[in-house]
Amino acid sequence: MAATSRFPTAVYQHRLTRAAELTAAAGLDGLLITPCPDLRYLLGSRAESFERLTCLVVPADGTRPSVVVPTMELAGLGGSAVDELGLSVLDWVDGTDPYRIAAGVLTSPARTAVTDAMPALHLIPLTGTLGTLPVLATSVLRELRMIKDDSEIEALRRAGQAIDRVHARMGEWLKAGRTEAEVGADIAAAIVAEGHTEAAFVIVGAGAHGADPHHELSDRTIEAGDVVVVDIGGPVEPGYNSDSTRTYAVGEPAAGVAERFAVLERAQATAVAAVRPGVSAASVDAAARDIITDAGFGEAFIHRTGHGIGLSVHEEPYITLGNATQLAPGMAFSIEPGIYFAGEWGARIEDIVVVTADGCESMNNQPHGLTVL
Amino acid sequence: MAATSRFPTAVYQHRLTRAAELTAAAGLDGLLITPCPDLRYLLGSRAESFERLTCLVVPADGTRPSVVVPTMELAGLGGSAVDELGLSVLDWVDGTDPYRIAAGVLTSPARTAVTDAMPALHLIPLTGTLGTLPVLATSVLRELRMIKDDSEIEALRRAGQAIDRVHARMGEWLKAGRTEAEVGADIAAAIVAEGHTEAAFVIVGAGAHGADPHHELSDRTIEAGDVVVVDIGGPVEPGYNSDSTRTYAVGEPAAGVAERFAVLERAQATAVAAVRPGVSAASVDAAARDIITDAGFGEAFIHRTGHGIGLSVHEEPYITLGNATQLAPGMAFSIEPGIYFAGEWGARIEDIVVVTADGCESMNNQPHGLTVL
Repeated sequence: MAATSRFPTAVYQHRLTRAAELTAAAGLDGLLITPCPDLRYLLGSRAESFERLTCLVVPADGTRPSVVVPTMELAGLGGSAVDELGLSVLDWVDGTDPYRIAAGVLTSPARTAVTDAMPALHLIPLTGTLGTLPVLATSVLRELRMIKDDSEIEALRRAGQAIDRVHARMGEWLKAGRTEAEVGADIAAAIVAEGHTEAAFVIVGAGAHGADPHHELSDRTIEAGDVVVVDIGGPVEPGYNSDSTRTYAVGEPAAGVAERFAVLERAQATAVAAVRPGVSAASVDAAARDIITDAGFGEAFIHRTGHGIGLSVHEEPYITLGNATQLAPGMAFSIEPGIYFAGEWGARIEDIVVVTADGCESMNNQPHGLTVL
Repeated sequence: MAATSRFPTAVYQHRLTRAAELTAAAGLDGLLITPCPDLRYLLGSRAESFERLTCLVVPADGTRPSVVVPTMELAGLGGSAVDELGLSVLDWVDGTDPYRIAAGVLTSPARTAVTDAMPALHLIPLTGTLGTLPVLATSVLRELRMIKDDSEIEALRRAGQAIDRVHARMGEWLKAGRTEAEVGADIAAAIVAEGHTEAAFVIVGAGAHGADPHHELSDRTIEAGDVVVVDIGGPVEPGYNSDSTRTYAVGEPAAGVAERFAVLERAQATAVAAVRPGVSAASVDAAARDIITDAGFGEAFIHRTGHGIGLSVHEEPYITLGNATQLAPGMAFSIEPGIYFAGEWGARIEDIVVVTADGCESMNNQPHGLTVL
């Protein structure tokens, strides 16, 4: 996997340079990034650590970034771009103060930003050392991470094609008499077989379970007539995620399902058609929501329309009421309205789209209708 | 799994009451706990969430705790003790301010403590709402979580016996000509087969790889004469972890290995023998370290002697230089000195022990010597 586990070093060099520029433009002195997708974005590093501080420090003044890392976890930087980038590696052993080392990288550490995943375990002592509470680096990195470059879009396209191939095979597994868990195990294996490095999530919500958007799997047996929500995805190298939902009917569904599903399908297609540079994230949410509300069951659509996707399954931009973010070419996010009738059934349709110069490209291209198996 | 996935409700009632008492005793107004082992400890909840706030709020004044939870994630509390405990459930939808809801549970939210895993994403806006930076709840919860009750010790004992059964079978898998990854896959399957809910970590470090304490697995082929560090573990229901290391030799090891290994074995046994109520964590670290240092290769022991264990694989108390924590009955931690010779070989011996009235009980009882396979 080494060859595909990160992009070429120049990609990370560019990202680090831009991150420093954006940090300076935000009036901040530096960025502090602990292990999480932000670290993978900036360094190609998959380092993991919790109680011992590993932290990339990016000075806003353009001086060389440093990585603070426990001596015993130095090997965890292997495979990342740290060496080729010529970063300064400041390793520390138990008994020394890593927060002081991190703060020391910055000439003036008064105004800093930290990654949104930094745990309180580190943020509280770091704040004590810095003397001021950092802000969220999201305000700096979102501009970078939201706009995918061609390499990233290509990875998202591969991910979308891989998950489409899994949905295309759904009839092999989704059958009356099998449990959600049995079907889910087959889907998980297929997610990997079709090119993902893992099955990050597998939701098979049959009948009333489909009315819980976060239901995953259970031992419930799928019955004839069940409407089944299947929401699946995972990462492909170098770490970009697929996420696609289709709703299936195992045999003919009950009266009234098709009519409501048709409204959902229209809502999802209308939201996709609303995507273009310059419109707000909120307006895309409204495009889907208005149609469902106008049809009289707006209260059944209990979540936002979508979320950004990339190295994280959920990231900026969120396609939600109140988000004035203007869409721009390269942004990647889901369009996934859903309708949920508690105790009865639910349905959701989800594609990942990438904003283009004049609209969007869908990473997912399986049929959107209620597929009767 | 439902029957064993948490302890009886009375256990959580007791823990919540004690948590509130300890919070008050620490001069704090309340505890704020997002999904992590602390939440599982206090509620038996396995809720997961990241960008939307789920948070248990425990007032120090003994009034009823509340759980702030996204409406769409309410189902994630299923299986926890929340209902039976009669907690107040405050659900929120996108567009409302969950930090204000959480702060509103406390009469006076001036001095609060947060779980060490709370991400900056939540801690920074929460601090804004509260007006003051919280402290780490570790200072409150460590006293509770460090002292295991009988149910927890029984779970740790089951975990220890399960991982011992895996080590006992090592000869089936660890053979010259196989790769670390192949051996690791067999071990992972056995970890589950012997009663764990998952294989949380599998380290097979052969030859020079054994000199990296955090090496996991690779495609390196194990060769005759290799010294191999095998550090493995995982959780058993309801969530308590095993963690045990043994070092093996595949055929006769090189000259000098046995002599140095004998020092390590003596260091580990001496540290175990040093464990009893009233002695400091640091003194147990010193018991192991002094022996290795006196033998002339103290610089090869590059990490602390141990870490607490329970719902987390690494938790308080840490058995390390500088930790004055006095050991007390019910504390559970690893004793795992190691020696690492870069580019050559490494060795580590690890048992989990639980402090008793006059010493300790080891959860792991496989032979400690260099087992030649």
